[in-house]
Order: sequence, then C-alpha cells, then structure tokens
Amino acid sequence: MNKAFSFLLLLMLTGSIVIAQSISSPDGQLQLQFSIKDSVPYYQLNYKGTAVIKPSKLGLSTVDVPPFLSGFAQVNQKTASFNESWHPVMGEFKTIVNNYNELEVTLAQPGVANRQLVLRFRVFNDGLGFRYEFPQQKNLNYFVIKEEESQFALSGDNKTWWIPGDYDTEEYSYTTSKLSEVSKLFDKSYDGNASQTLIPMGLQTPLMMKTNDGLYVNIHEAALLGYAGMNVTLDDKNFILKTHLTPDAQGNKGYIQTPFHTPWRTVVVSPHAEGILASKLIFNLNEPTKYASTDWIKPVKYVGVWWQMFLPGQGSWSYADTNNVHLGISDYTKMKPNKTHAANNANVKKYIDFAAKHGLNGVLVEGWNQGWEDWFGHSKEYVFDFVTPYPDFDVDMLTKYADSKGVKIIMHHETSSSATNYDRLMDTAYRFMVNHGYNAVKSGYVGNIIPRGEHHYSQWMVDHYNRAIQKAATYKIMVNSHESVHPTGLNRTYPNSIAAEAARGTEFETFGGNNPEHTTILPFTRLMGGPMDYTPGIFQTRLDYYQKGDTRYVKTTLVKQLALYVTMYSPLQMAADLVENYERFPDAFQFIEDVAVDWDDTKILGAEPGDYITIARKAKGKDEWYVGGITDENPRTSLVDFSFLDPNTSYVATIYEDGKDAHYITNPQSYHIYKTIVTSKSKLKQKLAASGGFAISLKKAGKDDMKKYKKLK
Amino acid sequence: MNKAFSFLLLLMLTGSIVIAQSISSPDGQLQLQFSIKDSVPYYQLNYKGTAVIKPSKLGLSTVDVPPFLSGFAQVNQKTASFNESWHPVMGEFKTIVNNYNELEVTLAQPGVANRQLVLRFRVFNDGLGFRYEFPQQKNLNYFVIKEEESQFALSGDNKTWWIPGDYDTEEYSYTTSKLSEVSKLFDKSYDGNASQTLIPMGLQTPLMMKTNDGLYVNIHEAALLGYAGMNVTLDDKNFILKTHLTPDAQGNKGYIQTPFHTPWRTVVVSPHAEGILASKLIFNLNEPTKYASTDWIKPVKYVGVWWQMFLPGQGSWSYADTNNVHLGISDYTKMKPNKTHAANNANVKKYIDFAAKHGLNGVLVEGWNQGWEDWFGHSKEYVFDFVTPYPDFDVDMLTKYADSKGVKIIMHHETSSSATNYDRLMDTAYRFMVNHGYNAVKSGYVGNIIPRGEHHYSQWMVDHYNRAIQKAATYKIMVNSHESVHPTGLNRTYPNSIAAEAARGTEFETFGGNNPEHTTILPFTRLMGGPMDYTPGIFQTRLDYYQKGDTRYVKTTLVKQLALYVTMYSPLQMAADLVENYERFPDAFQFIEDVAVDWDDTKILGAEPGDYITIARKAKGKDEWYVGGITDENPRTSLVDFSFLDPNTSYVATIYEDGKDAHYITNPQSYHIYKTIVTSKSKLKQKLAASGGFAISLKKAGKDDMKKYKKLK
Repeated sequence: MNKAFSFLLLLMLTGSIVIAQSISSPDGQLQLQFSIKDSVPYYQLNYKGTAVIKPSKLGLSTVDVPPFLSGFAQVNQKTASFNESWHPVMGEFKTIVNNYNELEVTLAQPGVANRQLVLRFRVFNDGLGFRYEFPQQKNLNYFVIKEEESQFALSGDNKTWWIPGDYDTEEYSYTTSKLSEVSKLFDKSYDGNASQTLIPMGLQTPLMMKTNDGLYVNIHEAALLGYAGMNVTLDDKNFILKTHLTPDAQGNKGYIQTPFHTPWRTVVVSPHAEGILASKLIFNLNEPTKYASTDWIKPVKYVGVWWQMFLPGQGSWSYADTNNVHLGISDYTKMKPNKTHAANNANVKKYIDFAAKHGLNGVLVEGWNQGWEDWFGHSKEYVFDFVTPYPDFDVDMLTKYADSKGVKIIMHHETSSSATNYDRLMDTAYRFMVNHGYNAVKSGYVGNIIPRGEHHYSQWMVDHYNRAIQKAATYKIMVNSHESVHPTGLNRTYPNSIAAEAARGTEFETFGGNNPEHTTILPFTRLMGGPMDYTPGIFQTRLDYYQKGDTRYVKTTLVKQLALYVTMYSPLQMAADLVENYERFPDAFQFIEDVAVDWDDTKILGAEPGDYITIARKAKGKDEWYVGGITDENPRTSLVDFSFLDPNTSYVATIYEDGKDAHYITNPQSYHIYKTIVTSKSKLKQKLAASGGFAISLKKAGKDDMKKYKKLK
Repeated sequence: MNKAFSFLLLLMLTGSIVIAQSISSPDGQLQLQFSIKDSVPYYQLNYKGTAVIKPSKLGLSTVDVPPFLSGFAQVNQKTASFNESWHPVMGEFKTIVNNYNELEVTLAQPGVANRQLVLRFRVFNDGLGFRYEFPQQKNLNYFVIKEEESQFALSGDNKTWWIPGDYDTEEYSYTTSKLSEVSKLFDKSYDGNASQTLIPMGLQTPLMMKTNDGLYVNIHEAALLGYAGMNVTLDDKNFILKTHLTPDAQGNKGYIQTPFHTPWRTVVVSPHAEGILASKLIFNLNEPTKYASTDWIKPVKYVGVWWQMFLPGQGSWSYADTNNVHLGISDYTKMKPNKTHAANNANVKKYIDFAAKHGLNGVLVEGWNQGWEDWFGHSKEYVFDFVTPYPDFDVDMLTKYADSKGVKIIMHHETSSSATNYDRLMDTAYRFMVNHGYNAVKSGYVGNIIPRGEHHYSQWMVDHYNRAIQKAATYKIMVNSHESVHPTGLNRTYPNSIAAEAARGTEFETFGGNNPEHTTILPFTRLMGGPMDYTPGIFQTRLDYYQKGDTRYVKTTLVKQLALYVTMYSPLQMAADLVENYERFPDAFQFIEDVAVDWDDTKILGAEPGDYITIARKAKGKDEWYVGGITDENPRTSLVDFSFLDPNTSYVATIYEDGKDAHYITNPQSYHIYKTIVTSKSKLKQKLAASGGFAISLKKAGKDDMKKYKKLK
C-alpha cells in the first residue's frame, strides 16, 4: 500500500471526508461537482451556481459480490475536453456539435481487495452525462446486479410530465403534476395494455420536468447496450429520483462481464423549453456509427395496409376466423377466408399505386403472413415463421409490381413478443426479405415476452433488440421497431435503427385515445431518445364515418395531423390514413407529399410541454423549409418569425391552417390553404384551433410566383 | 343433450357412480381397469389378478382454465388391438414386436361447456402405457398446466432403487430402500451438482421397484415431446406416487395448444428382473421414424481427448489461464498458452492414429473451440460460438488427417446451458460441421439454463433438445446429448439421437465416485429410456498412478470395464481411457476392439438391480456373440448357459475374466484371458471378483481353432 493511499484510507476510517472535484460546461453555465462523503460517492449539478441536482449518491447493489455502494476511496482523477462536429446519416441537423468537458474519477474499495470502479462525467452546455465503468481486474470479472442505486436529488417539487414506471410498456398518456402529486395520481395514470408490469412510484424516462425556478430538466439514459432499461422511482418526501432497472425472470437486473460500462445517465438542462428540444446531448453520448457503409440507409415516407385494421369493419390482419393455427400444419388453402383480410393482392396494389402516384417510397403491409388467427395472448412460441404469406398475398407478384413503380414494400415482423422464436428465425426472415427485394422491416413485440418471465426492458431483451438491428445491418435492412425499449440515441451508432415506437402512437386513438396535448409532450419525452414512428396523417378523424354511433375520434384537427410531420421528427414517416381519405382531400395531402423527412437544419421556434410546439426545418440538400405548429386543447395564436430563412431569397409559403370554425371535436376537417410570399423579415401571427395546428411549406419563389402571390402582410 | 348423456349426468349429480371398463394384455396376464368414481377418472393395473397399481386418480390442474380433475362423465369408449414388428435403425434387437390391446375413453365435463378429454391406455404383455389427449374443440384451444396429477397407487412398501427428484440433474448415485425409508434417506441421497433443484420427496424416473410379492415394476414416460419432463413425488403414508412436472421460470408447467397429447406414462411389469431389461415397451410407445432416409445413421465406437481432462495434471479444456474471455474480441494468438491444452494437433493426431490402428471409427475432441477459460458459472450467454478453434487446433488439417485414416472426428458443442445462444448459432454450427466433414456431435448442458429461470427438464428445454436433434437430422448429423432430459424412447422416431448421458457416468468416478452397484442399476433405470454414453473402458482405475497420494479410483476391476460394453447398451460407445493405457494392456483392449455396438439379438441371461447383470448379444449381421457380466461390491459366480448359440455351430470363446486375486480396490488390473471352444450345450460357471466382471467374445470356430483350443469343460 503506498503512502498516499494509506493516508486516504486512514481518513476514511477515522471519519467523514469530502473530496471534491468540479468541472464546468464549455460555456461555464453548468457545473458538475463530485465528492466522497463517508466513503460514498456523490455528484451534484449546478446551473449558474444553483443546484439542479443536489448531492446525489452513486452506486450499485449486487447479488453475488460485495456491493459498489460504500467503502470507496478516490485513487485517481483525470479531466479532458472534447470538441468535434459530426454528420448524422439522417437527422434534424446536417452537423451536430459534440463539445464537453470530462471528469474521470477512479475509485477503489480497499475493503474489497482494492476493487476499482471508474465514474465518468461529461458536462455539455446543455447538460450532463455520467456512467459507471468497471475495468477488467483480478477481483472483478463477473457479477450480477441487484439494482443500480444512482440518485437524482431534485431541487424541489418540480412540475413533471410523466407516465408510470413499467417493465413492459410505455404506451400511456402523460399526466402533468407536481412530483408531490404523483402518489395520489399514480393509479389514474395508466390504462390496460397487452403486456404491463407497473412499478409502484415509478416514472419512465425521458422524464420531463420544470423547476420552480422555471428551469427545464430532462432525465434519461444514452447508449443502452448490454444493460437493463431504466425507470426511476420517486421518493416524494425528499424529491429524490433513483434508478430502477428492469429485472429478469429471477429478479436479477444485469449479468455483467468486465470490462463493462453502464449506459450514460443524462440530465439535459435549459432555461427554456426550446433548448430541451434542440439538445442533441443523448446522441453525442453515443458512439459514432460502427458500419463501414451507410449509403443503403435512406429516409422512408410510406403508406400502408394498417390503419384500416383499427377501424370498424375495414379489415383484419387474419385471413380466417379460426383461433387455433398450427404453422406448417394448418392448411390455409382449405380454410374459409374471412373476407376481411386486408393484406390481399388488390388492396396492396392500390396502396402501391397511390404511393407511386404521390412520390412516397414505401408501402407497409401488415397481416401478410400466416399466423394472425391466434397470434396473441396464448404465450405461443412458434407463432409466426416470417416467411409464409397468406394465400391471397402473392409476394413475388407484389414485390415485382412495387419495383416497377419505384416503390418498396415494407416487411412486417410481428413477433408477438416470442423473442426466442424470432431469434431462431431471424436469419431466415432477413434472407427472405433480401431475396424478395425488401429493405426495411417494422418489427413488433406485442404481449408478454418469451423467454417467459423476461420483460420488454430487461437486459436480455435489450440485447435482443440490439442484436436484431445489428444483424439486420448485415443484410442492409432498416428496422422500425415497435413495443421495444425506449430509444437512447443508438441510431447514431446503428443508423439502420431508423425509427421506433416505444410510446403511445396514433393507433391508440382507436383504443383509449390520445389527449390533445399528447403530441406536445412526446418530443420532450420519448423523442429525446430518437425518432418515433408515430404514424400521423389521419384525415378522417371521426370514426362514426365508418360506423354509425361510433363515438371515437382522433383528438386533433386535420391540419394538426399535417403539422406533426414537422413537430415529430423521424426519417421514417407514415401517411397513416386510408388512401381513399387522402383522395378526398388532395389539396391537404399535398403537404404530406411535399414535406421532407430528412433535414439540414432545425429551428425550435416555440415550445412548452403540454401546450404547444412550433418547429421549422430545412429539407436535406434543398432550399426548402417546412414549418409545423401544434397546440393542445386550447386555441392559440403562434408567432412565426421567418428570420431563419436565407435573407437574400423570397419564398412561396403554402400555408395550411385550421378553418375559422375548426375544432378537434366538432369540426376537425375544416381547413384553409393559401399561398403567400415570405422573406426572412416576415412574421406570421398564426391562429390554431382547439387541438389544431398549422403547416407551412416554403419553396424558393420564381418570377411567376412573385406575380401570382401576395406578400405576407 | 342426448338421452344417454343426460342419464349419465343425472347419475353424476345424484351421487357416486362407477363406470368400469377393462382390457387385458395379449397374453392375458395384465389387466387394466378404468372407472369413474364421484366424477373423477381412475385406472388400476392388475398382474394375474393382483393389483400392481391400485385405483389411481387421473387428471391435470390448470392455471387459466377450469381444471381437468373432476366433473367428468364418460361419453364414449373404443377398444382396439395392434400387432406389428418393426426394425430399429440400430438397437439391441433386429426386430421388435409391438403388440398391445388399447382402450380409448372419451370423457366430457358437462360443467365446462362439455369440454372433452380422451384417455388412451395400451396394455402390452410387459406393461401399460397411458396418456391424456386434448382434442381441438371450441372451448379448448390453449391452456396452461399447473400440474399433472396422475397417480400411481402402489401395492405396498416396495423396494426401490431411486435418485432424488430434481429439475436439473440426474447425476446422482442410487439409493436402495423401501419407499417408507425415502423420507429419512432423502437428504443423504444427493451430492452437489453444477445445476440442481431438488424436489422434496421427489423421485426420478425411470423408477425401478420390486413389490413385496417379488414383482418388478418400472415407472417412466415415453415420447416426451412438447411437454415438461416428469418426476414423481411420494406419499409415503399411502405409497402413492404422483406426477410432478418441471416448472418454467414463472412456475408454470406447460403451455398447451390443442390438439395435443401428453407423453405416455409407462408401467413395465415383470415377475423377473430380466423381463424389465428385455422390455421394449417404451420404444413401442414412440412413433416410427419421421426421417425419409436413415442410412447416414451409423454406430460409433470412439476414443477421445476427454478422460485426461478429468485426471490430475493430464490436460485442460482451456487454452490459456485467463478467466475472462470476450469471444471475437479476446485475441488468443496473443495469449500465453497454459501448456496443458489437450485438444492440440499432436495429441489429436495420436488419438486418430490409435483409432485407425484399432478399427474405431471416431475420435471425440473436447476443448477444441474458444471460450473454455470462463465457460462455467457466470450465466454467460455468448459463451461459445461453436466454430472458432483454438490456435493449436487446426481443424482443416485434422479433419483431412482423420479422413485419410478412415476416422471421423466427433464435434463437441458444450453449450454451458446457454440454450438461447445455441439456438441462435445452431445452423451455423451444424453447417460448420458439414463443411468440415463431421457427422456426429456430443452436446452438453452443464450449469444453469439460459433462458434464466428455466430448468433442464422444463417444457422449453425439452423443446430445445428435440429441436436440436431434428435440426441436426436436416444436416445428417448424429447427436449424443449430455445433461439433457431423461430419454423416453424418442430414438425410435429420431434415430440420429444416437445416445445421451442424463445420468451419472464415468466422469463421476473422478468426482464423488460411482458405487460398485451403479452399473447394475442403470440398465433398470436410465437406460430404460434409451442408449447411454456411459463412456466405459477405464483400464487405469487408480488415480494415484497419475498423482502420488490421490485416493480416487474407479470402483471396478479392469475386466468389469470390458463387460460394460455389453451390459450398457449403446450404438455409440467410447473407449474412454488414455490410449497410453490401452497400449499397456493390448490383450484386454482386444475385447473393446472386437465388441459390436449394434445387435441382431439380445438375451438377458441374469439380472437383479443393484446386484448383477449378465447379457449376451449377437452382433448385427454376423454370427458373433458377446457376453458381459458384472457384479456389485460382492464377488459372485455367474452361470452362463450358451443355449442361445446356433446349435449347429462351434464357437471360439475368448474369455476375459478377473484374476483370481482381483479386487476393485486393491488389485483391479488383475485379469486372465483364455480361449476355449463352446457350443449351444456349453455352460460356464464364471467367477467375478468384488465389483468385477467378465467378457466373452464368441466367433465361429475354424478347423484350426478346433485343434488349437480345448472344449469348455
């Protein structure tokens, strides 16, 4: 034992000792302080000298080795700075700046054979990331995690937009409340789901909060690899959040082999809500792409044989009305067709034709493959084989037909959460895709997981999702994963992970419904981790259109649906409604046809979670901008300042706005479209109806345009 | 509701009613009685009018639907007779007679939407098989089993050769006791194992018993497919055994989709012990082979790089002395070799040379592939990739070398029980085998199962083992599976399942040791379900030969090791000792070189579980016989009556016997070999040493032989 170390040890044994280091963000506004008190490590995060995160314990409890909780002495520290710019394969920005100061603290536990643990902190202008690193060492090769015990000691009783903690689903509506109100609201915060395991006093991340000082704080994780997905639990007396990992069937939370590091724990901080949406901290904490080539990864705008299955009497995934199918044994050619099977040749061709006509490059087809008759709720392991179409879906004819029209059919792999089955068949399934010209797959994990007892967010499933994506890459296949774990910026590293669901999307409009404010919250929560396949674009919002007396309706105006293409970033966007409905509103559909899905630049023009969002984005490689604005249940007037435009250019703005009498309940399809000339000096006061919106496309004005259209007043 | 049925229902509702059917075995000795009492189904089995199994309840409890326990009425019954002969691909007999009378009882539960259940009973001359069948029906498509509640109400306090019930291992020594003594002996009946989950008052099957009337009774299961492996629990007050299935991680015991039938529950009955060993009832209850061709399935006699890893200082599976390997990342070419790695080119070539010289067609090589440094005890999922050899194992050179000598290397797939990993890599692993000329694999499942929480004998793992075997068949690969579930005669249906372990084999001689009686019990228990890769042939039984002071020893004489090739049937047999040891005893090794492993006929000449076994077998397609006799710790004189020989032929018998002074502890390598002429009229009084044996090869005598050798006195 060297002298310096024995001195530390002596201090530790003789009483409380605080060793403090601190680093600041490059702009000096944020400060991270690290300390050890009574041999326990703590961190604190200050914004302009005031605590955003008060002193918070760090550590992990373990199943099989002594815990990483106390008995720590600091043996080393290093600081570093980093500044780079990088270009995402697809994204909201052409260039992302990754600039941080770093503190690396090496701790040792003298009482556990001097076992070492490294804490790494990165402070950006927009927040903090930290993680645990376990170096490979003589006394630490393998261990099992009981729980990660990281604290986030909040500065007070923050306002919070939250969904309840769960091991299996994030498909909940958001509750807005003080932290102190979570307890009494918890049991009202959820409805039923195909698979759900609630965590008492648990909250899901990304967790969006606003302090009493008006500071916006967002807590999540980055680079979730080889580790269980995180929720946080709330101590509502002390306003302390604590990490709560998802267990496996035996209650263990992670099987670790050194060297290993946990995902980053992230705290994004901004004095204004727009700063949260503009933050790319979570992506910066992910590694650059591992792929040698990424030119096969392309944006996707698509229609699909999908929404109709949620509508009364409009179609089904299944081909027959049996409820007991044995794959490879049951003979579909001898079954009586139910006549509602949507993925039939004629219907798919109709969607291909529509996509081709309107310049959309994809057609999703769900329910194309055998097994949908009894796919759900039976813990059936061999539930789909992913390669056998129904008799009325001619895969070769349809892929050829799509190819002749310049359209790709998007594969659908619903796994019914039988992940073991999917693992075994994955190569076969991907090979089938390649052989039939598919280059993108929507995968799904509805229902309880097999291996039985595992959860959607347990370590084994996190490994599964990442394995599916990485294996897909070897086949040059893009993955749009549904019901999988919350994204954590991994699409930087694995950009074929083109989008995901992991939240309550449009489909819920036909179940419990999505509140008008839902899409004003999602960008502050779920979308912080990566693009979401929200499936906007529903023009026929009221379902009594299909079935007299049906009281369900999509809780937005038609125009708000257009705005979502801008406010909900994704390089994969669906025009989710029936093509028949688009044909009823061709002028409104023009915006969906025009809008980009990949961008060079993004401006958050205005935002408040739960209230409104206005965003402008510049199309990739073009001098075209698109603006989207949405509001909650309250009508609103938004100001659009066009100063983001090139000051030397005039633009034709096509403005899609709610009709004067529009209302998301009573008159959702009232809209008005007009064109006007705008420049960087223009300002627009735009009215939005209750749960309404607006959408604007901006294209360089030609001479004719200047004559034809008035300048914006 | 028809009148007959309503009459039944009335009777059911008004009180106890017994409906009894019975069928007898073709020879009339065994009688099965079926009855319903208080709406609960019962069966009973009589031998010559006396109950072997007293009235015993049938039924299953369930998790999600009403149970199949009571409220039953009989709605139909059918009887049938069956008689056929069939030829196993490999086996103890060229021809097996499958002759039984069958009773099929259809029951309904009027209280559960008239749900139907079929009970099927088959009565053979040598015992009973019965199973549950769940027809597909409107009200029964899926259900989850809580427990199978089949009873075996025994006739009394039977003498029993038993190992304790366990969900994960059968690698225990047998305890011999009355059933009433199980309780007090239970905690002494097991030692430690890499994975074990004991069942209180549980007993494993095949369970061998002897009634107070001297009747031999064996209980097991046949055709275990899609269902959890069975143990039985003992009610030692009433001497009732009850089925106890292996649970999954959530405690459930089976996920069932109709139509479905359980495995057969088997009761083999014989007035003499030899009748139990001669019974092929369990194989008869399995389906004929599913394979279109079986000509690629061949007997295997092999040596291997294996036993030395169990011996002090003789070799290791691992290449380096690290304990933390990341497959695909750790660079073995840069590691320091431990110099004990046994699967190196030179050593493997030595075994190939030996096999070629002595006409053995296989060489097993364990420890050939990367990952053995930290393969065990860490719940490491990606533990082996099954395709990457260590630097000192040149797979292409060695397979070519083996091929040039007419020998096949046997692949080894230790999975470390990471079944999910093996499932994912299985195709790749089998393809690698085909590409490198391997046609047989020894697979292993040491340690706790992944999916975590599953057990070695749970439904999911039973499916896994069967999947591995059926997939191997598509590559024309034979499988010798270790640590897998007890065999149940499935090698009739899937004959590439050439052998299995599923019991305490020779390796345990270096752990806790195998009792002298062990191999006199195994044919009555484990081997009832199928061939075992027991790995006999250890000539150097005392381990102090390798390491001074080592007190361990194989608890047999050398000659008993020879006899095991006949008494322990398997079409795959190892000569397990180091080739150096065989070279020390070439005259004794001649028996191993000569002995057949596939047979036209088998005669059980004498047997008593726990005491002795003498068996004669006729080599497949040859007029050659081999006789093996073994005894427990007691010296013994066995009578060999050669009346099984062709009466018109004289044979040269080469007799391998224990030396006069042989003893399994003090003088195990004392043996005597001589040749003599025998005919069908010859009789031999053969002495066996304590834990000794004898082995005889019988080949047609030529004229020279008749002159050269004396006739047996």
